[in-house]
Amino acid sequence: MSEPKKGPLFLTNTLTRKKEEFVPLNPPFVGLYVCGPTVYSDVHLGNVRSFTTFDVLYRWLTHLGYKVRYVRNITDVGHLVDDVDAGEDKIAKRARLEQLEPMEIVQKYTNGFHDVMRLFNLKNPSIEPTATAHLIEQIGMVERIVKNGYAYEANGSVYFDVPKYAEKFAYGELSGRKIDELMTNTRDTEGMEEKRSPLDFAIWKKADAHHLMKWPSPWGEGFPGWHLECSAMSTKYLGQTFDVHGGGMDLKFPHHECEIAQSVAADGIAPVRYWMHGNMLTVNGRKMAKSEGNGFTPEELLTGNHKLLDKGYSAMTVRFFMLQCHYASTLDFSNEAMQASEKGLERMMKAIELLSKLKPGAVDEADIASLEQRCYAAMNDDLNTPVMIAELFEGVRIINSVNDGKLALTGPTIERLKQLFDAMVFDVLGLKKEEGALRQAQGDSAMDGLVGEFIRMRAEAKAKKDFAASDAIREKLAVLGIVLKDGKEGTTWERA
Amino acid sequence: MSEPKKGPLFLTNTLTRKKEEFVPLNPPFVGLYVCGPTVYSDVHLGNVRSFTTFDVLYRWLTHLGYKVRYVRNITDVGHLVDDVDAGEDKIAKRARLEQLEPMEIVQKYTNGFHDVMRLFNLKNPSIEPTATAHLIEQIGMVERIVKNGYAYEANGSVYFDVPKYAEKFAYGELSGRKIDELMTNTRDTEGMEEKRSPLDFAIWKKADAHHLMKWPSPWGEGFPGWHLECSAMSTKYLGQTFDVHGGGMDLKFPHHECEIAQSVAADGIAPVRYWMHGNMLTVNGRKMAKSEGNGFTPEELLTGNHKLLDKGYSAMTVRFFMLQCHYASTLDFSNEAMQASEKGLERMMKAIELLSKLKPGAVDEADIASLEQRCYAAMNDDLNTPVMIAELFEGVRIINSVNDGKLALTGPTIERLKQLFDAMVFDVLGLKKEEGALRQAQGDSAMDGLVGEFIRMRAEAKAKKDFAASDAIREKLAVLGIVLKDGKEGTTWERA
Repeated sequence: MSEPKKGPLFLTNTLTRKKEEFVPLNPPFVGLYVCGPTVYSDVHLGNVRSFTTFDVLYRWLTHLGYKVRYVRNITDVGHLVDDVDAGEDKIAKRARLEQLEPMEIVQKYTNGFHDVMRLFNLKNPSIEPTATAHLIEQIGMVERIVKNGYAYEANGSVYFDVPKYAEKFAYGELSGRKIDELMTNTRDTEGMEEKRSPLDFAIWKKADAHHLMKWPSPWGEGFPGWHLECSAMSTKYLGQTFDVHGGGMDLKFPHHECEIAQSVAADGIAPVRYWMHGNMLTVNGRKMAKSEGNGFTPEELLTGNHKLLDKGYSAMTVRFFMLQCHYASTLDFSNEAMQASEKGLERMMKAIELLSKLKPGAVDEADIASLEQRCYAAMNDDLNTPVMIAELFEGVRIINSVNDGKLALTGPTIERLKQLFDAMVFDVLGLKKEEGALRQAQGDSAMDGLVGEFIRMRAEAKAKKDFAASDAIREKLAVLGIVLKDGKEGTTWERA
Repeated sequence: MSEPKKGPLFLTNTLTRKKEEFVPLNPPFVGLYVCGPTVYSDVHLGNVRSFTTFDVLYRWLTHLGYKVRYVRNITDVGHLVDDVDAGEDKIAKRARLEQLEPMEIVQKYTNGFHDVMRLFNLKNPSIEPTATAHLIEQIGMVERIVKNGYAYEANGSVYFDVPKYAEKFAYGELSGRKIDELMTNTRDTEGMEEKRSPLDFAIWKKADAHHLMKWPSPWGEGFPGWHLECSAMSTKYLGQTFDVHGGGMDLKFPHHECEIAQSVAADGIAPVRYWMHGNMLTVNGRKMAKSEGNGFTPEELLTGNHKLLDKGYSAMTVRFFMLQCHYASTLDFSNEAMQASEKGLERMMKAIELLSKLKPGAVDEADIASLEQRCYAAMNDDLNTPVMIAELFEGVRIINSVNDGKLALTGPTIERLKQLFDAMVFDVLGLKKEEGALRQAQGDSAMDGLVGEFIRMRAEAKAKKDFAASDAIREKLAVLGIVLKDGKEGTTWERA
């Protein structure tokens, strides 16, 4: 294939700041790289939002028929505490605090990250490479950059020469920053005296004697700069230029800006054709961050065990809530919004259950082809999931009307509507029926009704002073493991 | 602490072929290395058995109070098809067949492996390092071996010089092989002409032009020999000498034998104090292997979807079945044995449920301290899980007798028994209640009983020609989502 099933797809390219038609380099193949977590602490809900955005992109591209190689990395070395060139390595610091070997920290939080991705039903990437597994490729890239004259060694570290690069290439193009402005906004950081310009950034850092994570290199023992790993790994698995690079908005500068510079300096070619950035999650209007005390973990969200939460919400409720907002907009988390999403999702899931039970009519009184077309149009318009979900609710209204006998659809049209919901709700939005919870709720509610009937009959028997009958009912239930308890408020039951 | 809570622990050291008291190098710390999977295909039940053996060792050491650093690797490069120095890389071959990049194969089967480990309730290791993430360490080790004169380069590959090593050290000590016998049993393999002796093995292999996974090295582009990764990674994370190395019996030779030689040749010290090997799983008396058509996957086992399976078995039934056999004995899989384990596990879980409902008596008519002591003794005797489980069944008999009022135990003794079962069944054997299945089964059975009562009442009403009453019952149930179906065999029900 060379064209998607229902195209064309338009995506907002944050490099050009325009909505552009998506044309892959080598259709039907698509190369997609997404910046993964630094595994030194638990992920919070803001992280989940970002990964969910690109999960939906991956799902949509796959749905359109593309063969996507989806690479999402794990940063297990090199990410320093202040996000630039200074401070301790985030993982090494945590290792010191928890008194563990750094790789034990990496393992612990990688496992935790995977648990969260599974909980929110994110698909596994095709490749999940780690920075420590690509030291050789990173050292090779540093060597190419040095050889091309865009980096220099100083005291065992290697720095990228930003002013020199900027003479020839557009440093700051992605983030919209200007070299002059950046110059006036620098602050003193560690290693500053080694840098020719305060804008320069480390692509290889010399390791101190006490440093826990270090490897031999042509410049002595050290470790790679944080920005380098993504350049080295995307080049290795997707080629020097690939289709889409995604990440959270906070990564635009310096991380992604530096990725571009590294690739251009090393291999003379811009690495990415479409840059995409997801927006932030706020809580009651404030940025979600651990330091603000509002960066609750997925677990807190599910249990409701956090002062900002009125109650717990299921993982699919959270996912649905996130997708009801466009990825490029900020999304504000509030209990009211979550409860609205919870109801909305329930309504949609109920309609989907009804779909397979609708009675076919003789004519079609609703235009399902048009609904389908509008769903595709919304997704092809820069992954507009909120509009697509609104269209699906139009479908929900149709389903409910057919169920109530107020509207007719023929058998084939009902089948087409079913296929549309299956594709959009489960494959593309990545929602799933929360079976366990649902089934248990259904089961409990039927049980409640059944036992309630017996309680009523027993009360009747008692009222008639037919104690033999009322005792018989109690005993019958006891055999089934159901215990009746008589109290002031009436009779309740529980399992033995 | 310096002593385990209830010691001492004895383990069979396959290096000395003796049961030895386990004394860690630096108590309370224990270093444990276990050979993980080569991620080029789905794991089968035989693999699960091996990993479960060392999962129980990890759990037992932890239970005794040791702080265990448990390293289990992922082999993602270097394991060649014929398990020695010839043939294609297993992962590269699979990549070619599935038309994927090798790292996509690695990701796919690593994910699958993790799913299986989770299913069978194996604990995550502290570190799960991959071979490709330790190229630098492996190259460093090759350099040390060459420098010490126990390896030589030939045409871009580096071979370990077995005869030279054997002049000074005991090559074959672990597997009980003699150099002379090995010499007469060699066969021609690829690269043979480069080797000085047919016993020599590659620690670095030159990559052909078409080779997919290769890295630069002092000897040109290539990849590490399979045996090398475990030596390099165990040294990195556990030190040059560490406490326990485990693996399946089939890894004893050449893999573990070569690991010893590599460490001694590189660093002059034997790497492992206690070697442990788990035995095979057979099926109806024959070795489990994919080529035999009897290497069923965990999924086939759960669904029963395999010609050798009478029905599906739960993951915990399988785990229990495995632990009812000592790890060093072969275990034969049969439907009869599985069904016996299924019943046994059910009996044990029912007794555990009873434990919290037992009525305390005035005296103790059973010796729980002795039972506890026997459980510890069994585990400390080379992890004798079958004997420990037999002791637990003695506990089950006691529980049932107390429940039947035939035996008395005081409150504190019941509590002690409960703690023993919690520790041994859940923490040490790693069994868990299969909640979903159990709850659903319980729920369904109670529902069945309740609805059955209504069906009986309705039949009575019909017999009395009281159709108003019988219809009322049908309608009441319909409201609760329960549909009655009248057929030749009587009335049945299902959920709407």
